[in-house]
Amino acid sequence: MKLDTTPNSFTPGLAELDKGIERRVSQRNRLMGPAYRLSYANPLHFVRGEGIWLFDQDDKPYLDFYNNVASLGHCHPRVVEALSNQASILATNTRYIHDGIIDYSERLLELFPSALSHAMFTCSGSEANDLACRVAKSYTGGEGFIISDFAYHGTTSLIAGLSANLGPSMPLSPNVRTVPAPIDRNDENIAHTFTANVRAAIADLTRHGIKPAALIVDSIFSSDGVCTDPPGFLAGAVKAIRQHGGIFIADEVQPGFARTGDTMWGFERHKVVPDIVTLGKPMGNGYPMSGMIVRPEIIQDFGANARYFNTFGGNTVAAANGLAVLDVIHDEQLLTNSKNTGHYLKKRLTDLSDERIAEVRGAGLFLGVEIVEGADAKTPCPATAAKIVNELREQRVLISLTGKYENVLKIRPPLISKPEDVDYFIGVLERVIKKI
Amino acid sequence: MKLDTTPNSFTPGLAELDKGIERRVSQRNRLMGPAYRLSYANPLHFVRGEGIWLFDQDDKPYLDFYNNVASLGHCHPRVVEALSNQASILATNTRYIHDGIIDYSERLLELFPSALSHAMFTCSGSEANDLACRVAKSYTGGEGFIISDFAYHGTTSLIAGLSANLGPSMPLSPNVRTVPAPIDRNDENIAHTFTANVRAAIADLTRHGIKPAALIVDSIFSSDGVCTDPPGFLAGAVKAIRQHGGIFIADEVQPGFARTGDTMWGFERHKVVPDIVTLGKPMGNGYPMSGMIVRPEIIQDFGANARYFNTFGGNTVAAANGLAVLDVIHDEQLLTNSKNTGHYLKKRLTDLSDERIAEVRGAGLFLGVEIVEGADAKTPCPATAAKIVNELREQRVLISLTGKYENVLKIRPPLISKPEDVDYFIGVLERVIKKI
Repeated sequence: MKLDTTPNSFTPGLAELDKGIERRVSQRNRLMGPAYRLSYANPLHFVRGEGIWLFDQDDKPYLDFYNNVASLGHCHPRVVEALSNQASILATNTRYIHDGIIDYSERLLELFPSALSHAMFTCSGSEANDLACRVAKSYTGGEGFIISDFAYHGTTSLIAGLSANLGPSMPLSPNVRTVPAPIDRNDENIAHTFTANVRAAIADLTRHGIKPAALIVDSIFSSDGVCTDPPGFLAGAVKAIRQHGGIFIADEVQPGFARTGDTMWGFERHKVVPDIVTLGKPMGNGYPMSGMIVRPEIIQDFGANARYFNTFGGNTVAAANGLAVLDVIHDEQLLTNSKNTGHYLKKRLTDLSDERIAEVRGAGLFLGVEIVEGADAKTPCPATAAKIVNELREQRVLISLTGKYENVLKIRPPLISKPEDVDYFIGVLERVIKKI
Repeated sequence: MKLDTTPNSFTPGLAELDKGIERRVSQRNRLMGPAYRLSYANPLHFVRGEGIWLFDQDDKPYLDFYNNVASLGHCHPRVVEALSNQASILATNTRYIHDGIIDYSERLLELFPSALSHAMFTCSGSEANDLACRVAKSYTGGEGFIISDFAYHGTTSLIAGLSANLGPSMPLSPNVRTVPAPIDRNDENIAHTFTANVRAAIADLTRHGIKPAALIVDSIFSSDGVCTDPPGFLAGAVKAIRQHGGIFIADEVQPGFARTGDTMWGFERHKVVPDIVTLGKPMGNGYPMSGMIVRPEIIQDFGANARYFNTFGGNTVAAANGLAVLDVIHDEQLLTNSKNTGHYLKKRLTDLSDERIAEVRGAGLFLGVEIVEGADAKTPCPATAAKIVNELREQRVLISLTGKYENVLKIRPPLISKPEDVDYFIGVLERVIKKI
């Protein structure tokens, strides 16, 4: 049985490696142990980054169309300046008053529906989701969670138990029920199906004496293979969980901060207002920061009694860094760019006429391309998908794989990408697909 | 019942606040909600930091004798330079090869006994302890944990359940047993007592059908009130947990990185070699980074099957930042300074002759001063302790409180502190104690 489900990861012994790479891989294994994975059959060694480009040890450029952390482009000068400047003035925690975190909270909350009026700060997406689920349990008195069947929400003990994507060696919590991701392209009523599945999961939890605490979904279903349409399909499920005493947590670690184009947050595409929203990856354009936006009634008792302190969460440097990220998104009109360049990328991908492409899904600059095989073009084909990703890497273009069957190309260009970057990408992709 | 057990935290309405502070407190509450606490009866607003000093909105300096994050001094220029420089070159993750994390792992591991040969990287102390406990469960097949009775190990869901210090509103996990902290000054054989208590806890877990996974302790028992003597008292307990199939996790988030003076890590004072060591707070002198050092046999199966990825853990900027911290500790001889200045501070504190001081405990630059009252000078006196801490704050000197009864002054000067800084601190403390 294959236990490790990391898509697009390096398997030792399969490809012949450059000597310098081989030596470094062996150093990593010796020092960092067996838990770390490298990407690609032929792993990459990067030395510097600038905008949408990464550069290897020979200063060869790679088009980074797989980055939702350095979402504003690598080493964005305004963010680096804000970080460096604040780090040289004061780096301290939320037990002292500092204007930075007040200003940042104010700016961040302006981007949310008014019901979501408190901001809290953590360091990683895992920490944000862990806190959200702790708060959900405390608020509802429930212990049950509902997730999509190949969800990834993080790596703390609680959250790893809510991350089906981690594979069979990481058992799901007994209090978790999974529902099929809303991804079946033959289903004409995805919203209805998804709602019915969530209702069935609630009933099953209840039947086992487990009170529901929350439905938690990544609102772009990144690890499930990218499920975005039709907008609105989440609304019925959100209504269902609330009817049964649970809350709705929107995990915006992947889709947040303008990634989905039309709206700043993925949940807005579904016309729902979550009870808790979690934030992460692109929040600091590389600086370790994450957070949680919450309705005041949900956090009231937890806040008064359990309190929350995180040594680094909401520190003065994180606040300066986060503010710079919001400024850049605003000043460079990256939401509009995500929408426009995203539309163009989706169109170009859809126009690729190849029978092995079953579907192009996604919103804004977060796209999934499903690769299949067989006479009916219905069987997932991870082998072809992996070949495409690895051959792109040889052509110095970076994307990756996702989905339960690892047969979906995952394409996440930086928010600053322009139509000409898309043209370059599509040009290389066309050649690669023709060759395979 | 008092649910909130945050020592030395601001209580609204008790003190009259400066208008600017009051406005900011109210903004924080409105934006960040009810879970955040500020330190001191009269909270502080800091604007900049330099070395051992913090400066408020009027540029008034405060002696920061309560900092084990900016342990090399606030805004240490070499660390800020390393951080700024690497952030402007490349900030990316461990799925690509980068020399920084290889070099940092090598340098970090040189500081540990050779049996501890793998380094893994996370963002916060909570994440490091959560990962350590996940690995302990996976390796031992056990679910039971033993902690000290006022332990604090972090805030993830799992780790909050192992943090008795969080108070009655945060229930301990049913799989946890607590043992009294090794703090009884009338006990002539602390090692024997502590070992016997751990053995009893193991027996109780086993009696309930719970297989022990780990004994986890902060090796300076910071939240228990600082327990350091006699060195070696941990050894029997470590032997006991191993005899029953569990492992020993040394939480070095507080005592690590030269803090305890004689040795780089707190566990070394006890002549034990842990199975897992967790690291945090001062690791990046303010940059959010933490980690776990582990014996290879413990991580073998978990690494191969469950894998571990943390978007920000071990990123290129963290590595550069962490290397700079190790360089500064080495080049400025901060271990020696921690020992020497720590000895001097302990002597000066011990020489304060006041019947309300029951005991001075600690090692290196991590000291606890127990405050008592009553004719027999045995009753913990949190009120006097709080008065001292708050009056020191009015005199612009920062320390805090710790211990189950919140009656222990917690003093953690930066590692760069000199005897003249100690003289200044003791001078102010003497005046304050006399006045109260």
